[in-house]
Amino acid sequence: MPPSARIENALQSALQAGEAPGHPPRLAAAVRHAVFPGGARIRPQLCLAVAGACGDDDPALAEAAATAIELLHCASLVHDDLPCFDDAATRRGKPSVHRAFGERLAVLAGDVLIVQAFQALATGGTAHPQRLPRLLAAVTAGVGLPFGIAAGQAWECEPQVVLRDYQRAKTGALFAAATIAGALAAGADARRWRALGEWLGEAYQVADDIHDATSSAADLGKPVGRDLALGRPSITREQGLRGAVLRFDLLVAKAMQAVPTCVGEAALRALVQREGERLVPRSLADELTASAA
Amino acid sequence: MPPSARIENALQSALQAGEAPGHPPRLAAAVRHAVFPGGARIRPQLCLAVAGACGDDDPALAEAAATAIELLHCASLVHDDLPCFDDAATRRGKPSVHRAFGERLAVLAGDVLIVQAFQALATGGTAHPQRLPRLLAAVTAGVGLPFGIAAGQAWECEPQVVLRDYQRAKTGALFAAATIAGALAAGADARRWRALGEWLGEAYQVADDIHDATSSAADLGKPVGRDLALGRPSITREQGLRGAVLRFDLLVAKAMQAVPTCVGEAALRALVQREGERLVPRSLADELTASAA
Repeated sequence: MPPSARIENALQSALQAGEAPGHPPRLAAAVRHAVFPGGARIRPQLCLAVAGACGDDDPALAEAAATAIELLHCASLVHDDLPCFDDAATRRGKPSVHRAFGERLAVLAGDVLIVQAFQALATGGTAHPQRLPRLLAAVTAGVGLPFGIAAGQAWECEPQVVLRDYQRAKTGALFAAATIAGALAAGADARRWRALGEWLGEAYQVADDIHDATSSAADLGKPVGRDLALGRPSITREQGLRGAVLRFDLLVAKAMQAVPTCVGEAALRALVQREGERLVPRSLADELTASAA
Repeated sequence: MPPSARIENALQSALQAGEAPGHPPRLAAAVRHAVFPGGARIRPQLCLAVAGACGDDDPALAEAAATAIELLHCASLVHDDLPCFDDAATRRGKPSVHRAFGERLAVLAGDVLIVQAFQALATGGTAHPQRLPRLLAAVTAGVGLPFGIAAGQAWECEPQVVLRDYQRAKTGALFAAATIAGALAAGADARRWRALGEWLGEAYQVADDIHDATSSAADLGKPVGRDLALGRPSITREQGLRGAVLRFDLLVAKAMQAVPTCVGEAALRALVQREGERLVPRSLADELTASAA
């Protein structure tokens, strides 16, 4: 089964587990709205790719790890879109969860998605429970305090912030959790895999800043110009568009170099290159650096 | 060490794990504000008492389970107090988290508390990882879909609701998770322990409805009359104060009967009786039934 089908199937199963007769239907619908149809699913793809490169001896656990990472990502989007944060009317080209279901169900849907991430790990962890303590620790580190994505979001509420710390937590942490969790799910040593996730996550955040400053809302499927409007730390604001593109190229190169020697090395490098081109196509990068010059 | 000290120490450790240098300080402060000083800590007490009654062969795991249950309870309070739900200005006699730290940090603090619950289980689960899949499943069932406390809260957003289903999910589910998790943490059969948690949880919710209808905000440390004002299902509204007190007495009696045969049976019954008297003192129950007659 191709990775994208494995991911969609696993996400479907995770949500179905919460839909027994007698559940509150609007909350379950809000949760589905947040997860399907998805975006690029890059984090779970990365997680499965790393598990594959490490032998993937427990595919159910790898899928559970990928599911957990993606559900946590979806949860963060739902809460980030709330009126008190971005007040985003759209996400992935359709109404955001709070616009479609109201603010209360959006708060609860985010909460439930976090819980279902760990429910998925409980279900997937029966064959190799001895892997669960480290896997849980890796996944929670990607989202909580001190350095996970909730911490990254919280830096927006602090009077002073270092851009790189902010971006590393806000995006890099969950990418690092994705690579580490993929390795741990396959029973491998996770330390070799952290750097790949961190570099790619940072590249992803820089690409997000570039699109926020240059794209239209129709292209992105979500509001643009928010970082500037909300006075948020942003690399385009700090270093200009040219600086941002140069930094992006460097980060993708660093991610390529960070792929450790393994059986799936070539496939992983190809994934990183494909993602780099998808995030900031060469033509756009050239255009931006030329117009900024 | 007495159970209350074990619980406070374990909660301190769980929060300290998120406070490494470089964390966003206001978010960490909001998380602390939500957890300390605590309320009655009845759910973690119940969890530890059941673990004790089952032999408590892994005290670290029992404390992790109790911590997870209490952190999830605290998370639900922070999110329930948000402007879009109860808009409560106070909680446990001090400003609610969103009043003290703002709405954004309150959303994030709730999210982080959910994550830290599972972080605690990861840390506490190293000696008996084979217990983690069921323990995780029990804890997540208490809070997520289809029947956990988030589902209970979501029933407030549905056009029609059955009072008992609503209360069972909103409060009973986490009490049931507390007893089940206590048994699982000690490697015991959890099925015998569900009923105790369910009856006690339902009693707790009925007591909450009684206090919402009869107490002052100063006595409770949180706003009163909210159920009525927000048109929520409530047993006092449905059956009157006298009906609510009779139901409460019945539920406490059911909880007492539900304590299974075990070494800690007497201590557990004493805990249930003490809780019953704390929640709705006999004098108050007599006064309410007399004045309603």
